[in-house]
Amino acid sequence: MWKYEKKLQYPVNIKSNDLKFAKVLVTQYGGANGELGAALRYLNQRYTMLDDKGRALLTDIATEELGHVEMIQTMLSQLFANATIDEIKKAGLESHYAEHKKGFFPTDSNGVPFSVSYIATTGDAIADLEEDLAAEEKARAVYENLIDLATTDDIIGPLLWLRQREVVHYNRFKELLDEYREKR
Amino acid sequence: MWKYEKKLQYPVNIKSNDLKFAKVLVTQYGGANGELGAALRYLNQRYTMLDDKGRALLTDIATEELGHVEMIQTMLSQLFANATIDEIKKAGLESHYAEHKKGFFPTDSNGVPFSVSYIATTGDAIADLEEDLAAEEKARAVYENLIDLATTDDIIGPLLWLRQREVVHYNRFKELLDEYREKR
Amino acid sequence: MWKYEKKLQYPVNIKSNDLKFAKVLVTQYGGANGELGAALRYLNQRYTMLDDKGRALLTDIATEELGHVEMIQTMLSQLFANATIDEIKKAGLESHYAEHKKGFFPTDSNGVPFSVSYIATTGDAIADLEEDLAAEEKARAVYENLIDLATTDDIIGPLLWLRQREVVHYNRFKELLDEYREKR
Amino acid sequence: MWKYEKKLQYPVNIKSNDLKFAKVLVTQYGGANGELGAALRYLNQRYTMLDDKGRALLTDIATEELGHVEMIQTMLSQLFANATIDEIKKAGLESHYAEHKKGFFPTDSNGVPFSVSYIATTGDAIADLEEDLAAEEKARAVYENLIDLATTDDIIGPLLWLRQREVVHYNRFKELLDEYREKR
Amino acid sequence: MWKYEKKLQYPVNIKSNDLKFAKVLVTQYGGANGELGAALRYLNQRYTMLDDKGRALLTDIATEELGHVEMIQTMLSQLFANATIDEIKKAGLESHYAEHKKGFFPTDSNGVPFSVSYIATTGDAIADLEEDLAAEEKARAVYENLIDLATTDDIIGPLLWLRQREVVHYNRFKELLDEYREKR
Amino acid sequence: MWKYEKKLQYPVNIKSNDLKFAKVLVTQYGGANGELGAALRYLNQRYTMLDDKGRALLTDIATEELGHVEMIQTMLSQLFANATIDEIKKAGLESHYAEHKKGFFPTDSNGVPFSVSYIATTGDAIADLEEDLAAEEKARAVYENLIDLATTDDIIGPLLWLRQREVVHYNRFKELLDEYREKR
Repeated sequence: MWKYEKKLQYPVNIKSNDLKFAKVLVTQYGGANGELGAALRYLNQRYTMLDDKGRALLTDIATEELGHVEMIQTMLSQLFANATIDEIKKAGLESHYAEHKKGFFPTDSNGVPFSVSYIATTGDAIADLEEDLAAEEKARAVYENLIDLATTDDIIGPLLWLRQREVVHYNRFKELLDEYREKR
Repeated sequence: MWKYEKKLQYPVNIKSNDLKFAKVLVTQYGGANGELGAALRYLNQRYTMLDDKGRALLTDIATEELGHVEMIQTMLSQLFANATIDEIKKAGLESHYAEHKKGFFPTDSNGVPFSVSYIATTGDAIADLEEDLAAEEKARAVYENLIDLATTDDIIGPLLWLRQREVVHYNRFKELLDEYREKR
Repeated sequence: MWKYEKKLQYPVNIKSNDLKFAKVLVTQYGGANGELGAALRYLNQRYTMLDDKGRALLTDIATEELGHVEMIQTMLSQLFANATIDEIKKAGLESHYAEHKKGFFPTDSNGVPFSVSYIATTGDAIADLEEDLAAEEKARAVYENLIDLATTDDIIGPLLWLRQREVVHYNRFKELLDEYREKR
Repeated sequence: MWKYEKKLQYPVNIKSNDLKFAKVLVTQYGGANGELGAALRYLNQRYTMLDDKGRALLTDIATEELGHVEMIQTMLSQLFANATIDEIKKAGLESHYAEHKKGFFPTDSNGVPFSVSYIATTGDAIADLEEDLAAEEKARAVYENLIDLATTDDIIGPLLWLRQREVVHYNRFKELLDEYREKR
Repeated sequence: MWKYEKKLQYPVNIKSNDLKFAKVLVTQYGGANGELGAALRYLNQRYTMLDDKGRALLTDIATEELGHVEMIQTMLSQLFANATIDEIKKAGLESHYAEHKKGFFPTDSNGVPFSVSYIATTGDAIADLEEDLAAEEKARAVYENLIDLATTDDIIGPLLWLRQREVVHYNRFKELLDEYREKR
Repeated sequence: MWKYEKKLQYPVNIKSNDLKFAKVLVTQYGGANGELGAALRYLNQRYTMLDDKGRALLTDIATEELGHVEMIQTMLSQLFANATIDEIKKAGLESHYAEHKKGFFPTDSNGVPFSVSYIATTGDAIADLEEDLAAEEKARAVYENLIDLATTDDIIGPLLWLRQREVVHYNRFKELLDEYREKR
């Protein structure tokens, strides 16, 4: 089970008004390579890891990814917080407003709802860890795409930090995979 | 952010061998009215609640639902743990084995992958809370269906407990909704 | 069975040219909280209501919702009727034109195709009626979002009327639910 | 708009107990080639037919298909009506019961939820009518598959009648398409 | 099995810079009526054609459609090749860039991922060939929509050629269907 | 473009009658880790590889995977070829017959239609190649699951060969990825 701690893993404080960025940012919430998929992937796969160490690693990273989901949610929430209807129209977010007003939803940047078809669990620890390496690299790539599109430092800061975490996770998964491959 | 505590919210200890039950149980993980959808629904809606009390309530219940996800996962894991190929064939779980071996996946009981199309966020706190009441009642109904189908006490016990939690959550959401309706 | 009567439930006569509005309006046709989902939800659930009164109420409201589907379709049809390619491009509806020319399709405002994953039937009349209350409130909320985005009276008029019908339906479902709860 | 007439288009009165057949029958409700898809396809396409005659034909057939939806729903409802838990388990319908108890849902025979991805509207009357011909032939083929699988006359009777209606619709659409092709 | 020949079926050489067109063009790759769906439809249906001639025809046309997939991919690739971030933003393709950078993906023009729900195989050769006629007409219609939206000759040229191939395929399928209908 | 060669990459000749196996085998056609997804993944990603060598490798392996699709299709076709209605019922394939008669369809082993949500293209060659490594390992794992479930040598033979090809592809992708990582 989990305990909630009322604190973000890394501070988010968006004061600028790049509302349009919400449309692309949301993909790191509910897109194919986003944080929600990552958390669910590891939460599900952990039951077929080969040992306690493996199960603990996946639980640990999954729990951190839940915190990343919360960071992205907070960024989205701050972007929408003070937006007027006119600003929403100007940013091309009418479709968003029609569906969710100033709320938001786990979709990709085209508005396609999140589905677990993005993730896999084969019950084979080696195959699942290869999927995890791929997941971390794909998330890293998407963060880089977002950073290319971002225009203000209060957005770029958290994205750089989140991107870096993917690299750290990649390395931790790689280490476990190497160990498991040797054992096989 | 969240902290993981290595403990189930309610004990799960399945020793019986009703492997076939895994096929229906999984819907309370990844089905339309399952625990994963519940957790994500509240985690997403909390940003447009009307006050801190509302945000705290949704965070609180969402966090508990994550723990329920873990309970269902543990039940599935225990059901598969010692199954032989022959038992899997006898239980009609060949399709499951082909896809996930002794792992499992967030689907409904027909194997349809979980999607957030099951949940909604309108950005209107009243509408969202009505959705939450419906969610809790639907989850309660599905637990009752599962209990009708279950055959052993080590499965029925946790299901009864989980069913009861849905009733408690319904009442807490109802109280908040009544308060918000009055304020409107 | 049904008989078609060549008449709209409430008059629709759009002469203004807010083509862009078609992109958001379509969600009340094929979106998560739209009229098509409402009609199908009640048509499906009516078979497990507890008595003739319940079955009749759901049939009655479902039939009305089919008429609302037709109203939204008519609005979409009138918006597209005289549009030129240039106007379609200006309104940002190239994607729509590529797929459907001057026709339209049951999607949400992002173009995601309608699916019955948006609706539920648990076979439990209480749970299903709670879902219906939620559905009516969510549809009401979306109509309000659309009215916020609309700019001309010939569009706002029918939307206001449709919004009001959701409130009426909510009350009728509420009455039945209260009755069923007492009986239980 | 539509008026409901409390009468089936063709009588359905299933007294036999082939519960297992419900699992395949449901595809003519919510499957790729089922009656719901047919009704929605024509209801949507009618707005871009070339003349009143075309619009009237599609409205007419769509309205009849809604009545066919109701016939299939009634068949499903009668099959489930008196089933006990044991009979449901024997028929392999545990998954159904878990999700919908004695209700049912618009899915295909594998339990995949209905989606409008099965249907198309191009805004080109010729292309849409070709799609309608295909739809009627595919529905005819599926009815024949179902009749191959059915074992009792109270089920086969309505299926034969429904199959025949697809042939009639095919011919009516063909006539209109030929006329439109000549005009082009 | 197939052999790859490093050559396009018809030359594609886009030098103009109508990046915005990529957003609609992609539907002929991964949309409901696109080339990928066509190829897979025939590849799948060929196993239940009535004779070798039928199987050969479907294999032949499917193989050509794979080549059309490649042509559309090449067009997309050339459109993105030299685009700068600023041009991508100007063209309204931020969402695309966030997900795929300068790559692309089989979706419709709204970004909805390709699914085989767009295609059907009934196992009945007559019904399947009617579906194929419909497919070719719908693809023809979409090419015409795209040509309406296109602005430069280096794009319109290949689209005209591809449109024409749909007409040829329609005629070949029609001939086979007529033959099969007579035999029945 | 491609040329079809009327020959399987590896011989398939199923004479035994394990019809039930068709239900699981189909996942290597249209499931999350199946051959169709593999082929499309590489066909799509090749446009953003870093050099001709990379593009050629992905084209080459994609083309081979198309041949694997054909092998699985042939296996499915042979399994269904002589089945009677009684055998189909005995094997629990009524749902299959209702939808596709003796044809088949690209789904997973639960009947969920194939979608490209299973695959990714980030436009980043490193991330895409990691995804390819994962894909090959996951396909390998699923072949092993299928071999566990298979009972006759005429089925196991081709599966062993196909499994081995995944290992070969893994190694070829790994080599390219290592090269690209060094260059970065």
